[in-house]
Amino acid sequence: MGMRKDLQETTKKKTFSEMQKERREQAQRSILISCPKKIPEKKLLKHLCQHGDITNHFFFESFGLHAVIEFSKKESIASLQDASFIPRGETEFPIPFKSRFFHLNLKNPSNQTSDVQCSNQSSPLNANIIKALCNAESVENQINTLMKILQLTEENIRLRYLTCSLIEDIAAAYFPSCTIKPFGSSVNTFGKLGCDLDMFLDLDDIGKNSTTKTEGSFLMEYQVKNVPSERWATQKILGVIGECLDNFGPGCVSVQKILNARCPLVRFSHQASGFQCDLTANNRIAMKSSELLYIYGSLDSRVRALAFSVRCWARQQSLTSSIPGSWLTNFSLTIMVIFFLQKRSPPVIPSLDSLKNLADVKDKCIIDNNDCTFVSNLDRIKPSENTETVDTLLCQFFEYFGNFPFNKNSINIRKGKEQNKPDSSPIYIQNPFEISLNISRNVNESQLERFVHLARESAWILQENKGQSSKTSTEPWGLAALLLPSVPNKSKAKKAGRGQTSEAVKKLLESIKAESTKDPRATRKKTTISTQS
Amino acid sequence: MGMRKDLQETTKKKTFSEMQKERREQAQRSILISCPKKIPEKKLLKHLCQHGDITNHFFFESFGLHAVIEFSKKESIASLQDASFIPRGETEFPIPFKSRFFHLNLKNPSNQTSDVQCSNQSSPLNANIIKALCNAESVENQINTLMKILQLTEENIRLRYLTCSLIEDIAAAYFPSCTIKPFGSSVNTFGKLGCDLDMFLDLDDIGKNSTTKTEGSFLMEYQVKNVPSERWATQKILGVIGECLDNFGPGCVSVQKILNARCPLVRFSHQASGFQCDLTANNRIAMKSSELLYIYGSLDSRVRALAFSVRCWARQQSLTSSIPGSWLTNFSLTIMVIFFLQKRSPPVIPSLDSLKNLADVKDKCIIDNNDCTFVSNLDRIKPSENTETVDTLLCQFFEYFGNFPFNKNSINIRKGKEQNKPDSSPIYIQNPFEISLNISRNVNESQLERFVHLARESAWILQENKGQSSKTSTEPWGLAALLLPSVPNKSKAKKAGRGQTSEAVKKLLESIKAESTKDPRATRKKTTISTQS
Repeated sequence: MGMRKDLQETTKKKTFSEMQKERREQAQRSILISCPKKIPEKKLLKHLCQHGDITNHFFFESFGLHAVIEFSKKESIASLQDASFIPRGETEFPIPFKSRFFHLNLKNPSNQTSDVQCSNQSSPLNANIIKALCNAESVENQINTLMKILQLTEENIRLRYLTCSLIEDIAAAYFPSCTIKPFGSSVNTFGKLGCDLDMFLDLDDIGKNSTTKTEGSFLMEYQVKNVPSERWATQKILGVIGECLDNFGPGCVSVQKILNARCPLVRFSHQASGFQCDLTANNRIAMKSSELLYIYGSLDSRVRALAFSVRCWARQQSLTSSIPGSWLTNFSLTIMVIFFLQKRSPPVIPSLDSLKNLADVKDKCIIDNNDCTFVSNLDRIKPSENTETVDTLLCQFFEYFGNFPFNKNSINIRKGKEQNKPDSSPIYIQNPFEISLNISRNVNESQLERFVHLARESAWILQENKGQSSKTSTEPWGLAALLLPSVPNKSKAKKAGRGQTSEAVKKLLESIKAESTKDPRATRKKTTISTQS
Repeated sequence: MGMRKDLQETTKKKTFSEMQKERREQAQRSILISCPKKIPEKKLLKHLCQHGDITNHFFFESFGLHAVIEFSKKESIASLQDASFIPRGETEFPIPFKSRFFHLNLKNPSNQTSDVQCSNQSSPLNANIIKALCNAESVENQINTLMKILQLTEENIRLRYLTCSLIEDIAAAYFPSCTIKPFGSSVNTFGKLGCDLDMFLDLDDIGKNSTTKTEGSFLMEYQVKNVPSERWATQKILGVIGECLDNFGPGCVSVQKILNARCPLVRFSHQASGFQCDLTANNRIAMKSSELLYIYGSLDSRVRALAFSVRCWARQQSLTSSIPGSWLTNFSLTIMVIFFLQKRSPPVIPSLDSLKNLADVKDKCIIDNNDCTFVSNLDRIKPSENTETVDTLLCQFFEYFGNFPFNKNSINIRKGKEQNKPDSSPIYIQNPFEISLNISRNVNESQLERFVHLARESAWILQENKGQSSKTSTEPWGLAALLLPSVPNKSKAKKAGRGQTSEAVKKLLESIKAESTKDPRATRKKTTISTQS
């Protein structure tokens, strides 16, 4: 799809903060509209153009039809707001909060014909994934197809930034120079459709102002309330913002204030966008990790391709789970992929230390005594000489970790080399910034064994499948084969709620057999559509 | 004091809403500063002038020295804010909320000399009141002196509007077109120094916008949260504002959310201004009552003079109390004064019905099916032909209610005539707007008896004192005599915490005897100072 291509070509050159800045600014010019089922797109756009030029728009389904409209100027929104009403129901009373989230009414809904195309915002069904893979040309093609199906779409990214921006309006009411930025999978290029939206409330710019204006014998301060610790301040601020979301926040439901967590947060679901949101504050290291992954993900297309395959595989094999526990996490797996790619010769991507060596003065960054410095300018990292194809790399990945000496070595992407394990945890992956921490501390021995076992099994399946393609196969092959439930783990699988998956897969296998007689292109087309938008 | 004179002459002509508008606008150009003890006034003003012209300023004491600065332009405040800091303590962490309430630091406090005059914001001591009255020339002069001592000063009025305006900033963060206005004694011209600050959160302007812009087939509404009742909405909004005051509101302490009251409210104390504040919402009838009293109070100077005397007398005789109970209220007493003045011939002030007959179209006002219509333009009410002096009127007031047939008649300022009592409550004063309600429902038989008894006693004392003046007296006389604890009620008095009053009075009587030998002017001057500012 054109839009995404542009995005990727341009963001390649952009630094993480440039990209964030551009997206934020775009979101601030955008609005969210909940629409009736039948909506005449052209008429609506014509109507909205009264308030200014529209540079972009799309529709999507989430508890009803919604539209995102991007104006070319912020002023247009003020003009639209000026022409909008607070609804006054007979039996319902509004909390008259004026946001950039509107509700559109048609004066005569009956005689309207809907002509809108909805962009998909939710993660695809396993069945559709496997179907798409079976129709691919090669394992390499399968891996790239999988990434295309799973990765965030341009629209979904816009929607994530818009949602942050809407929440920022609520926070900024009290803290004018605060910002709310997405972090984690929404921005690190490894996010998949349907992943949570992690929000970062940044209060640091507040009070940074006018540090120069101190001449004269007077020093003017704001009269403020004080609390004994920064944590306490964060808890108070998040607490009140939580109250506001709960009471005013249009579309914000099931707001939970989890203020006593190590990192205090407000969790809520933003119905209109369909995102599960976690709002935290002053969580700077997490933002830096997002930037690091963004850099690795943007450096070489193989990094993301491989990560998506490995993570999807792990999920299908219930090596990861949505329930916290002794499972591997997507973050751990991504770091393992990065480490593996650093270890290739020639390396596909450089070590974190070499990214640090490329850093200039303005990249310097120390957070809580942790050195988080690394180059931000992607153009200063020279492309890899490694030419291996992603299918080879995937196979090698499984082989590499199928035989990794987890018992004595730790995984360290800062050095790009394995190190001696500092403790006896089954698997030790050094946190790239808080280097005394093991990001896979939670993983127990049996989960590690399952991982190793399945990695070997998968390496073997891929070897065996080499060269084979959809033309000759009547059942899942290549990457698709890796995504089928592996027999020994059925029971475990059921626990992690994969009953319906295997169900879906049974149906699927039949449908494939049936289709294999028809022209595969038909299904391929269906697939391509479902991977688009 | 010049300032107050101007105020009174000009506000006489202003309608209630004009006055409110002017005061609000003045408050929005003003800031509050907490200052160190020693502060060089001239230097400070010179420093602040960097940000724009200062049209008015004063200092006062409340948990330390504070200043109110009124700029001629709002922009000056933005400029000052831009040059101000969020303080960063070592052990204290700020909630970085930027308001118009500042804290001033001196770079070298040592070598500063304070040259500020503080304006008094608190109610005078009984002893000082009685002293001032004893030094007056006549009973008429006593009555006017008492009013001057007790009434709100120009500075105190400014401070009340500024406090509302600071709270409005917090509410307006979420409800941009909401306003917070003072009502009740702060604005009805009957308030005395130290009285509570009643605030009215007005959300009605919200959603009033753009009722015209409905052409085209689309109707754009804000997406809002809805609740099943207006009361519920009010509770939610006040609840969140309460949270904000508690967590961010500079100087707002002991915030209580009393949301299940008949009229939900948030009670808090604003330390810097020293006001006890009650924030309610959509309490329109109360605002209308304030306007009515404002009109009666502004029509004829004798109304306020008499009301202040009667209310001060009632308080001293513990006919009223700060504790809710079966006592008369200041509001009831004020209505009784108004009624009494309507009953004179010729009347001093017109009935509410005749004020209604003078109303024009834009004065029309119906609230919850109660007709609250009356003329807003004071110039359309012609002055009274009654020429009685306030001392005569006070005496007559006591005689009138000393002999009023409370058993069969009700007090009705709408008609300006007594009516038959609709029920058997000891005293029945019709609520001027919710005409089916008795505003003195709470008063029991024994309290009424005390009132009647003391009214007669007081009428008698005033008769006896006729013509007497400070020249010849060595102990409290005239109005002062009425304010001394009356023997029969000592016991009751003690309960209502007047122990220390009588104490003060004993000391006072001695001091007066002592002074009576000296030139009375000396004390008179002292008095005048304490009544000023």
